Order: sequence, then C-alpha cells, then structure tokens
Amino acid sequence: MNTNRLLRLRNAMQQHKIDSIALTPGPSLSYLTGLHFHLMERPVIGFFSSDGSIALLLPELERIKADHMQPEVRVFSYDETAAGRENTFKDAAASLNLSGAVIGIEPLRCRAFELWLLQSVLIDSTYRDGTDLMSSIRVVKEAAEIEHLRQAVLIAEQAMEALLAQVKPGMTEKEIAAELVIQLLRHGSEPELPFEPIVATGPNSALPHAVPTNRKLQYGDLLLIDWGARFAGYISDLTRTFAVGEVDPRLHELYQVVLEANTKGRAISRPGITGAKIDAQTTDVLISAGYSELVRHRTGHGIGLEAHESPYISQDQHTPLQPGMAFTIEPGLYYPELGGVRIEDDMVLTDTGVESLSTISREWRQL
Amino acid sequence: MNTNRLLRLRNAMQQHKIDSIALTPGPSLSYLTGLHFHLMERPVIGFFSSDGSIALLLPELERIKADHMQPEVRVFSYDETAAGRENTFKDAAASLNLSGAVIGIEPLRCRAFELWLLQSVLIDSTYRDGTDLMSSIRVVKEAAEIEHLRQAVLIAEQAMEALLAQVKPGMTEKEIAAELVIQLLRHGSEPELPFEPIVATGPNSALPHAVPTNRKLQYGDLLLIDWGARFAGYISDLTRTFAVGEVDPRLHELYQVVLEANTKGRAISRPGITGAKIDAQTTDVLISAGYSELVRHRTGHGIGLEAHESPYISQDQHTPLQPGMAFTIEPGLYYPELGGVRIEDDMVLTDTGVESLSTISREWRQL
Repeated sequence: MNTNRLLRLRNAMQQHKIDSIALTPGPSLSYLTGLHFHLMERPVIGFFSSDGSIALLLPELERIKADHMQPEVRVFSYDETAAGRENTFKDAAASLNLSGAVIGIEPLRCRAFELWLLQSVLIDSTYRDGTDLMSSIRVVKEAAEIEHLRQAVLIAEQAMEALLAQVKPGMTEKEIAAELVIQLLRHGSEPELPFEPIVATGPNSALPHAVPTNRKLQYGDLLLIDWGARFAGYISDLTRTFAVGEVDPRLHELYQVVLEANTKGRAISRPGITGAKIDAQTTDVLISAGYSELVRHRTGHGIGLEAHESPYISQDQHTPLQPGMAFTIEPGLYYPELGGVRIEDDMVLTDTGVESLSTISREWRQL
Repeated sequence: MNTNRLLRLRNAMQQHKIDSIALTPGPSLSYLTGLHFHLMERPVIGFFSSDGSIALLLPELERIKADHMQPEVRVFSYDETAAGRENTFKDAAASLNLSGAVIGIEPLRCRAFELWLLQSVLIDSTYRDGTDLMSSIRVVKEAAEIEHLRQAVLIAEQAMEALLAQVKPGMTEKEIAAELVIQLLRHGSEPELPFEPIVATGPNSALPHAVPTNRKLQYGDLLLIDWGARFAGYISDLTRTFAVGEVDPRLHELYQVVLEANTKGRAISRPGITGAKIDAQTTDVLISAGYSELVRHRTGHGIGLEAHESPYISQDQHTPLQPGMAFTIEPGLYYPELGGVRIEDDMVLTDTGVESLSTISREWRQL
C-alpha cells in the first residue's frame, strides 16, 4: 500500500473528525490498497481507522488477495452461508473497537446493502458522508497519476482517428459504438472502460446522455461521440461532434458557439480560479449567443480513477483549484429533435497554468 | 412499458405488503420501463406504487427519455444546483403521498446516496428490502428473454473459438482479455459486457475472482477464462479451463473431477428441485473425490439482465425451481499456488427438464 496516501488519509480523518472510514469496492479502496474487487452480492468492506489500523472484511474466495500486504491488514473472511457471513460481521465489529464511532462512508459507492449490514452490527455508530474526505486525498494528482491520465487520453484519441477512418452513413449507433470499443482496446485501453461510449446521431444527439440505438447514421446528421479509455486505472473522457455531409445551418452555428465556449473554458482554467467561475464564464458564452434555453448541464467534472469525481466545474463550487487537479471542460448545446453539440477536453492544472491533455482537432469536421 | 410486468409487480407488492418500490438505475428499472440511465452523482429514482401510479425523479438533462411513456408517468426533474435538486425531491415526496408508507428498495443497487436522499424527504416512511419482490417478478423468463439469453451464449461461444485461434504462450492475461473483449464485440455483443472477463493463467487460476495481470501465459499453465456477452440486455456467463502443453498431473486430475461435478449438476437440474439440492449433489462430487479443502464457492447463480441474480444454486436456497428459470452450473476446485479449474454452463429449465444453452466443448483441451 502507498504509505503516503495512508498518511494523508489519517490527517484528513482527523480534520473531518471521522474515526474510521468504511470503503466498499471502488476507486477509493483501490487507491489505498491497490486491490480490486467485484461489487456484487458478497460484501467487501475495508476499514481504515484514525489510529492507523486497517481491516478488510471479505469473502473466503477473495481472501488470498489480502495476503502479504504492507502495512499489515487484519482480515475477516466469511464463508458461503448467510449465518457464516453474519457471524464474521459480528466478530469484526466486536474486535474493531468501533462501538460508538463516527464512521465515514462513500454514499455514491456504498450501497444500502453494505450500510444496512454495518448498521446491523455497529448499532450505536454514526454514519457520515466521507466523500469530501476521500476527494481531498485523491483530488490532487501525483506526477505518475497525471502520466496515466495522459496515456488514457492518447489511447482515446488514437482510437477515434482509427474509428473515423471506418465510419460511414448506414452504420447504426450501436455498430459505431462497438467499433469504437474495439479500437479503444486495440490501442491499449484496459477492458474495463470508464463508461460505455455515447454515439448519438441526428436528433439523438440532442440527448446529453444518449444510449446508442439502432438508428443509422445519415447524411445531414450531427454525430456526437463521448468516449474514453482507461490506462493503469485512470480514465479519459472526451467528446467531439462531427457533421455528416451538409447539416442544418442552425447546427453549424450551434457548433461555433460551443467551440467558442470550450476555448474560453480551457483558456481561463488555472490554479486559484474556482469551478464556479469557470462554469459561469464558459456558460456565459452560450447564453450571450442567445442559447440559454439550450443549455442542459454544467461545464465539467474531475477525472482520475473515476469518470466523474472532484473537482466539479459547476456553479456551487467555490474552492480555488490547485495544481495537479484534473477535470473536463465540456460545454454543450442541445436543440430538441434537431441535434446537439458538445466539445469536451481533459485538462490538468500545472504550477503556473493549465495543459489540455487532449489535442485531437476541435475544428468543424465534415465526414 | 410492459403492462404484464407492471401487473405482476402490483400483485407482488400486495403479497409483500409494500406500498411503493423505489428503483435506482439498474436492471429492475430497465425491466419495467425499458429506459436506461447512468448510475452517477445525479440521482434517478422510479417510484412504482401499489395503486398503479408511476413517478420518475430525474435530472433535467435526462427528462426527454421519459416523454411519451405508456402508461403515464409523473416526471419530477431537477436542475444542476444542489438547492434545485433538494426542492424537486421535496416536491416529489409531498405529491407522491408516501408519508408513512412502506417503501421497498433494492439494497444491492440503491446506494446510501439515494437512500439518504429518500430518508431526508420521506422521514416517516419505512424502508424495506425489495430484492425478493423484484426477483419474484423477474426470475421466470419469458420466451423472448430466453431467446436473448441463447443469443448471448452463442455470441460468447463464437468469440471464444475466435480467441482460441489466436492465444499463444507469451501473451499476457491482459492481452488475452482485451482480445477476448474485441471478439465478443465483433461477434455481436453489446458494448456493456456483463463483467470484465477473468483470464487467469498458472497460479493465478487458483483465485476464483482473479483480475487479469501482466503475467504471460506459459507452457505448463492452466488457462482459466470466465467470460460473457450481452444481447438485448441479457447476459451469458461461461467458464472454460484449458491446458497449455503438458501440465502437472494433479491439475489434470482436478479437471476430471470438476468436469464430473459439472456433468452431475447439469444432469440433475429440473423443475421441482431446489438450488440447495443441486448445490449439495454437485459439491458432493468434489468432496467425495477428496477435494473438500479446495472448494471455494457455491455451484451457481441465476442469469438474466444481471450476471448474478435469482435463483442462486447454493446451500440455503430451498424454494423449488420452476420452468423458465435460468442459472449457471459452475463447480470449481482451486489448488493454492498451483492452479484452479472451473467449468461453467448456462442452463434454462423447460417444462419437463433442462437445456444447456452453452454447448462449447467441456473436454480436456490442450492448447
């Protein structure tokens, strides 16, 4: 385990007045332990306590993963019976000395399943949102993490160029998405992609979170693709919007405004500015052009081990950004039933300014 | 929406004495609505109440997905601000008339995030585990669902044959896994695979839930691959274990015993038998051969929209199985540091017996 990270965690726990943080499978648990678990019907919980002790509660069949860890980890493993699991949870609760403790969880990761299990054996403990605590230790990326992000962006961009060489009218959104995934893997992405690519054609591009359908790409469509790769656990998250032949001039105009907003958002990103300010100034480009009705979402979100994490680039984020933080700039405009445009880049703050990890062309491109 | 399914849901809710079931993004919500949502930091909750009313709470940017639904759905959508979301939740809670209601959730899907949000606006409601309720309406597959499962198995088997033509010593587990994913997509799997394939070589095959590493495949290894495809939302989940050249005779013996157990488990599966009985008789083959110490897990689990769902083929499942139920038979034995064997098939119960959807060879195969 990374002792630096564990040390930062202990400091953050003291600041947040949390006695123990209980992590379920996901990026935070992997960040601290280097271990990966499936999130299923067999609970896995890692306890990191403010006294520095670490415990791992997991099924017998995963036990071997926890062998030989440094620093030492107490392991509680349960068998395949309901009674066996219950007893192991009770044993763990009794010997972890967490009675009456304030326990942090990650509510976006911890399911009611694990929460109810914890509450059933630690009945006088208090459960609190530990998201900010975990964000605070993960949000500033180490140099190696930034290199992983850079590699994830590179893979995504190479995959896109390979895809574009094959895209043609008549292909369905699903076919394009499958081909994109193939190219992501061919170019070195880990199989567990950060998210299923969004491939949205024509009117479907007006849905910010469209799911690929059997609609066929046609002349006159916008083709919006939101995709990412994963490298060493770290993700990229990009969006480009292409024109297929001649499109409605209103969509071309939409594109120019979104591009201007994207350029603005990237230009003003730097240490010291807040997510709220980037969001306001970027969105203002969209609004000033007369499109306030077509705005559907904030300007961006952090990237790292997750496709959505701190820092968020949205109107309620008033903490100044710091060097080493990584996030997307992704303004978009969506014309219902006509089409939508989003242009998304992956940024990382340096000591003095900002770098766009993504460099694939943002210019209007007709396929 | 499928009115038959909604009707079965209402009947089940009356039996389970649940006033409303609150579903977060996942297979149950998709099963009922046909809609797909991302599970992220923007909550989506569908309320299905015993009076037949349906409500959907979701972010503005997903609102369009809920248009034109039949039967009618009340939609509550929130904007990108924390205050806006809170107000929408309060409005929804007030107008849904759920004060004091018994609300079912799926604890394996609903996160502490959504549970805490619900509890903050429906403070005098009772929250109960609705897993069995939802299982009861999803567990018996309709004919069309079985055809989807069959197709998902076919894709997985074709992808495996294409992969095996390319596998050779020197490839890493990660490379083999990436190539397998590519073949799954080439053969028609949806991009969102049921799970990341397990590709475990040599000693790593002794870990039932191994994650692919950079270890290279070597002569003398067992190569254990656990993989699946997705078709129309439905999944397959297969495992085969191959020998690479000459392997330790103890592993060959392990293989024969696991194959015998797999054959037994498939043969005894039929309507009327319980999961516990299949598990006991299958595991007994492993134990009788003297390998009780190397057993790590139950015999199987249900398959459908999820890779792990009801019916579970394990020792505490005493409900007789019915025609239309689909599940895996996957006995395994794991020799620590030497290697493991698992042979997994996808079964569906017919009116009179059982069909193995998977037919790819189970015989000892040397690559």
